[in-house]
Amino acid sequence: MSVEQDLDIIARGADEILVESELVEKLKQGRPLRIKAGFDPTAPDLHLGHTVLINKLRQFQDLGHEVMFLIGDFTGMIGDPTGKNVTRKPLTRDEVIENARTYEQQIFKILDAERTLVMFNSSWMNAMSPVDLIQLAAKHTVARMLERDDFQKRYSAGQPIAIHEFLYPLIQGYDSVAMKADVELGGTDQKFNLLVGRELQKHYGQPPQVVLTMPILEGLDGVQKMSKSLGNYIGIHEPPEEMFGKLMSISDDLMWRYFELLSFRPAGEVAGFRQQVAEGTNPRDIKFRLGEEIVARFHDAAAATRARETFIARFQKGALPEDMPELQVRAPDGTLALANLLKEAGLTGSTSEALRLVRQGAVRIDGERVEDAGLILAVGASHVVQVGKRRFARITLGS
Amino acid sequence: MSVEQDLDIIARGADEILVESELVEKLKQGRPLRIKAGFDPTAPDLHLGHTVLINKLRQFQDLGHEVMFLIGDFTGMIGDPTGKNVTRKPLTRDEVIENARTYEQQIFKILDAERTLVMFNSSWMNAMSPVDLIQLAAKHTVARMLERDDFQKRYSAGQPIAIHEFLYPLIQGYDSVAMKADVELGGTDQKFNLLVGRELQKHYGQPPQVVLTMPILEGLDGVQKMSKSLGNYIGIHEPPEEMFGKLMSISDDLMWRYFELLSFRPAGEVAGFRQQVAEGTNPRDIKFRLGEEIVARFHDAAAATRARETFIARFQKGALPEDMPELQVRAPDGTLALANLLKEAGLTGSTSEALRLVRQGAVRIDGERVEDAGLILAVGASHVVQVGKRRFARITLGS
Repeated sequence: MSVEQDLDIIARGADEILVESELVEKLKQGRPLRIKAGFDPTAPDLHLGHTVLINKLRQFQDLGHEVMFLIGDFTGMIGDPTGKNVTRKPLTRDEVIENARTYEQQIFKILDAERTLVMFNSSWMNAMSPVDLIQLAAKHTVARMLERDDFQKRYSAGQPIAIHEFLYPLIQGYDSVAMKADVELGGTDQKFNLLVGRELQKHYGQPPQVVLTMPILEGLDGVQKMSKSLGNYIGIHEPPEEMFGKLMSISDDLMWRYFELLSFRPAGEVAGFRQQVAEGTNPRDIKFRLGEEIVARFHDAAAATRARETFIARFQKGALPEDMPELQVRAPDGTLALANLLKEAGLTGSTSEALRLVRQGAVRIDGERVEDAGLILAVGASHVVQVGKRRFARITLGS
Repeated sequence: MSVEQDLDIIARGADEILVESELVEKLKQGRPLRIKAGFDPTAPDLHLGHTVLINKLRQFQDLGHEVMFLIGDFTGMIGDPTGKNVTRKPLTRDEVIENARTYEQQIFKILDAERTLVMFNSSWMNAMSPVDLIQLAAKHTVARMLERDDFQKRYSAGQPIAIHEFLYPLIQGYDSVAMKADVELGGTDQKFNLLVGRELQKHYGQPPQVVLTMPILEGLDGVQKMSKSLGNYIGIHEPPEEMFGKLMSISDDLMWRYFELLSFRPAGEVAGFRQQVAEGTNPRDIKFRLGEEIVARFHDAAAATRARETFIARFQKGALPEDMPELQVRAPDGTLALANLLKEAGLTGSTSEALRLVRQGAVRIDGERVEDAGLILAVGASHVVQVGKRRFARITLGS
């Protein structure tokens, strides 16, 4: 494959590549590049949002490069030194190792373990002398650090910034020096820190890493970022049927976004799908492909097929309409009972009608009959809600 | 002696005591207090300006307290980590020890060696782990640090402040924790840093140190601070005659300032001198007392007597007028040749007259005949200049 073809794969879905011409030069060298991505050392429970970055790492591996999966345990073992955040207790060495194992169990569903180095920044940071750390701190100015968006906002608003917070981006940047990273990947929110790595490498006489930022994945609602606390997520440990059903609940627009950031299908194949939909194919059938690919990744191909079949059976083959209204329903308190949801969505005329229909077994959520009219639905998630044989809606709960 | 009497001695000449009531409480405890003062680890060549602080330490010793003379070698051994200041090279361990010896030779002319601990902050700073240093950095905020005058000015002016510069006040403050200081002395320009020490001690569960700031001593010109580079200083290694002559050149006003900050004579005795001058005693005779005390401190009593006698002999006993005009002469280039000085000061009508009078041996500086009309005089110094038998002036060169 040519450098141009490699670049196409690398650039897919990426938000920014800084600097692309440098990346081209590195690719031309023909050697395996050292690709860095840093992760939080706290107990990981990955969802599809996290996998956007991991997928990109996998693409680098497929192109022959070496992934350095960095667990930032050094700062994690410090805890919150201001003592203000009691929930952020220092992690013990054992906890860090345990968390690393949990990471490995999850990431090796995507990454090739043979081409992945799991690293811990405590191994070089704890070996630093206080003089080394001061010399590191000398490599950046207060003014430049205050340019970082969140620091700027806090400083302007008179909210305290403890001085050690200025050291963390430098430590993250120094990791790139210690690891001799050629490329560092991160979310768009990490851009400032990734650029610090570039500068520090120059200070330490290394060629600067290329910075590649990936966008933050939207959750099932298609609006807010995928996050556990917002409830709009798909965990990579979820059972096949759950995962498949959630993916079926997303809007058609979001489907294309997920294809770009979550699918490993070649860009050309995805373009073919778009063409098919434009020519009249039901988007639901294309969404099936997405669902199967994702389920197969975290379970296996057989589980993916079963999940699709279960989904179709639930919706009583042929009963699921090709076009469903998509509704946003507000849940001011963060949750909404099912009967209220049905009324708010206009699927029933009243909550009492809703209660009666649930009792009669006429209400299904994501194809499954519901028996509890008081069922509480969380904000952020999308569901296909069916009342009787004809009333359908794809409903997203907003707050 | 009572606590009130102790406090009178301690407060003499001090700029600020923060907090005086806390100092009173500490004095009431009746135990020897731990008195800290920090000094630069670079090659010391002390002048009277430096001794203002050391004198105050001596006064504490005389009241039974223990002096901790801290050499800040930790940062000195780092050098300038930005690499911008090539003149600030890291000191080696040997250089630090050599500098410490030179300090001791000088300070023990004032301090009681038995009651002085010479300490090095490298002994606790080098033992810190990077985690310890980060936890130290967490104890202060960026906003508070930017309140420091010089940081504020540089930040506002867009001049870079490297992040490690924020760590130095914290390290200096941490020294107080490691040393369990009861009182820290410093120049008025050190007030911010001394207060950081107070806060850190509270963070580390210690009673906060009392901060005592001493004013910066004016040089021989009575205007600018005493400094080697301004040339308006008296080095403590200068020969007795030199030292005595320079002290005789100061104005009467400055004499009282020097009595306050440099003399160990009881305040009551100095008040008596003022009374004598008010009643007609020639201030020059009182200045003799000051000169003898200072010369005796750095040499001995016999040398002080000889220096006074030499001075009187030089000025041909009785020939020195009681009142001399005091003149400021501008030297735009930083120096001025003697002949020009004489003309500028109005002691001669022209430079050619000045040249002729020098050739004839009619010009004396500080009582000593001058033979070189091209003699260059440095800015900052004061001299008693005499032309013939009757023309006198005390001249200070300004730039």
